[in-house]
Amino acid sequence: MNKPTFLLAPDSFKESMTAKEVCIAIEKGLRKVYPESRYIHVPMADGGEGTVQSLVDASGGQLYQKEVTGPLGTPVTAAYGIMGDGVTGVIEMASASGIHYVNQHTRNPLITTTYGTGELIRACIDRGMKKIIIGIGGSATNDGGAGMAEALGVRFLDEQGEPLACGGGDLGRLSTIDISALDQRLQDVQLIVACDVTNPLCGEQGASQIFGPQKGATPEMIQQLDHNLHHYAAVVKQQLDKDVASIPGAGAAGGLGAGLLIFTQSVLQKGIDIVIEYSGLIPKLESADIVFTGEGGIDFQTKFGKTPYGVARAARASGKPVIAIAGYIGEGIDTLYDEGIDAIFGIVPGASDLDSLLQSGAANIERTCENIARVLALRNQ
Amino acid sequence: MNKPTFLLAPDSFKESMTAKEVCIAIEKGLRKVYPESRYIHVPMADGGEGTVQSLVDASGGQLYQKEVTGPLGTPVTAAYGIMGDGVTGVIEMASASGIHYVNQHTRNPLITTTYGTGELIRACIDRGMKKIIIGIGGSATNDGGAGMAEALGVRFLDEQGEPLACGGGDLGRLSTIDISALDQRLQDVQLIVACDVTNPLCGEQGASQIFGPQKGATPEMIQQLDHNLHHYAAVVKQQLDKDVASIPGAGAAGGLGAGLLIFTQSVLQKGIDIVIEYSGLIPKLESADIVFTGEGGIDFQTKFGKTPYGVARAARASGKPVIAIAGYIGEGIDTLYDEGIDAIFGIVPGASDLDSLLQSGAANIERTCENIARVLALRNQ
Repeated sequence: MNKPTFLLAPDSFKESMTAKEVCIAIEKGLRKVYPESRYIHVPMADGGEGTVQSLVDASGGQLYQKEVTGPLGTPVTAAYGIMGDGVTGVIEMASASGIHYVNQHTRNPLITTTYGTGELIRACIDRGMKKIIIGIGGSATNDGGAGMAEALGVRFLDEQGEPLACGGGDLGRLSTIDISALDQRLQDVQLIVACDVTNPLCGEQGASQIFGPQKGATPEMIQQLDHNLHHYAAVVKQQLDKDVASIPGAGAAGGLGAGLLIFTQSVLQKGIDIVIEYSGLIPKLESADIVFTGEGGIDFQTKFGKTPYGVARAARASGKPVIAIAGYIGEGIDTLYDEGIDAIFGIVPGASDLDSLLQSGAANIERTCENIARVLALRNQ
Repeated sequence: MNKPTFLLAPDSFKESMTAKEVCIAIEKGLRKVYPESRYIHVPMADGGEGTVQSLVDASGGQLYQKEVTGPLGTPVTAAYGIMGDGVTGVIEMASASGIHYVNQHTRNPLITTTYGTGELIRACIDRGMKKIIIGIGGSATNDGGAGMAEALGVRFLDEQGEPLACGGGDLGRLSTIDISALDQRLQDVQLIVACDVTNPLCGEQGASQIFGPQKGATPEMIQQLDHNLHHYAAVVKQQLDKDVASIPGAGAAGGLGAGLLIFTQSVLQKGIDIVIEYSGLIPKLESADIVFTGEGGIDFQTKFGKTPYGVARAARASGKPVIAIAGYIGEGIDTLYDEGIDAIFGIVPGASDLDSLLQSGAANIERTCENIARVLALRNQ
């Protein structure tokens, strides 16, 4: 095999390189040993941060920026993507409503809203999208997706018929949900929601209890937020005849999962499965001899749906060997060998602080991949 | 090749693991993939620190400790080795007269002495050694090996016939060298001196100018030391009819190179070549399919006679592929690919400080080698 075809399907190396940049660095390294090989780039993601960028890059699509309402009501500049097929939009909720927009002092899940995420959905619809992939990790919110729905025309009213305040804190006063002005175009749009958790909307495993604390909720807030989401679900059931309270994943992103299920044509799916499907990884695997994947970090958590795991599973189904690289190798990687990852290499050249490593990712990936290729080439001896 | 024979010939990973410990960790990693392979351990060194340990380990010899005179005249505990053949001793001069025995305040090449190194040579002779390998790196001294010679019976006298003080600072008063009491047994002992520098004893490229500063010599001291070594060489030439002043390597270790050439049956040889010969590397290469080497650090300097370079050169002559591992990979490793190193891998799992890495060397070597083996094993697919 003097000219193996390499398929390069890494995730981004967070804070260091996009998945596309990782592909380029891997190829650069391998090419020193295999100059005549074919290199197929499939920038990957797992539904989390980087999903928009990777799916746009993998499909030859386009990134757009849009000013939307941030989680605290002030404007933020969010990004979304249109894939190369021209009919599939990609959104990360965190880009509009993410936890990185609040700080220790301003984080308050009683008032944070998913309104901006709804604006991104509307922007995709305005561009004629028929499908919208939406990654929902990293939220600052606990509003059951009410803000998102509001941006799409739904009105949440109290007993006096007045609109509620933004955020999960006021949902306890919800009396009427008015969907008469809900964007009609949503009926022709399928939302594919990248959701890796199975938490229900309410209760002990619900959005408020499990994810509230990391968003700044005190024990009292958690109680109030959970109570409010219970009430919200009850009103939805009564007035819209939809029972979302106990659907696995409804509690994702502070209940945005539930909101999407209630007000849009949504399916929840594992993030990595969505990216594998929409990146076209599987058909591209057919012509590959060896697959390279990777991520900023690889450890025991990788097998809970991270990109290297998903790529390896797909590659194994196609009978292709997989080599993974990572900036950080943690405990428990042994279990990944059984999942189709044939070998895992760190790229770090020596004792170094994280900042320096984030700066030197490309050179380290290139060097590591060149040397992996050098071992692969030994087989030809 | 389901059961390749692996030859493991690493240097030590300084401050972390002996070469033998590195061999064990490499085997442990490879064995997970190749449980039925044969593993030949050849702990290596390059004539520098670790040479005694590695040659003792490689030959099944024995380590001994001995209290000798340190560079400042106070006792220190030094180590030396007897190789498995029972007739070859191994010494590192630094173990008796090394720079690590002095500090910023006590370092003074006017007074530091190689006397302890002479005591180690005598200890080897007392044990019946016929050959003594002596590594001379890391010295704190600039005495032309006079201290070493004194320990073996030579007397350095001034015009009044009184013994000189220790150290290079008093050599300027040398009037007579009395070798009448020089240990006669030295005539039957061959000293093989591991010397990687070509500096002459005196002058601009001499011991005092080049190596004096790192031993604490001020410009004035350098001038005095160089002057004294000139005088020393002149007296030697006149009284002993030996001209060592301009022999390449005579300036090594503050002129210990010269002292050994003057007073013992010595040959200077590159350290790595000595270790390759006395470790039996080359015959052991014959039965190997793949060679692993490594060192704490690998960079552009590796090809100036470091272990991975020496091992690779020998392996290439035998047509065997070589894979190297290192705790630190620096600039310029590309040039090593042309020297017979087929691939080079770092072992560091992520951002980390040096202290932590020094503690976790074995686990990191093991993991890296397992994964290299996993790539090697792809050839069987």
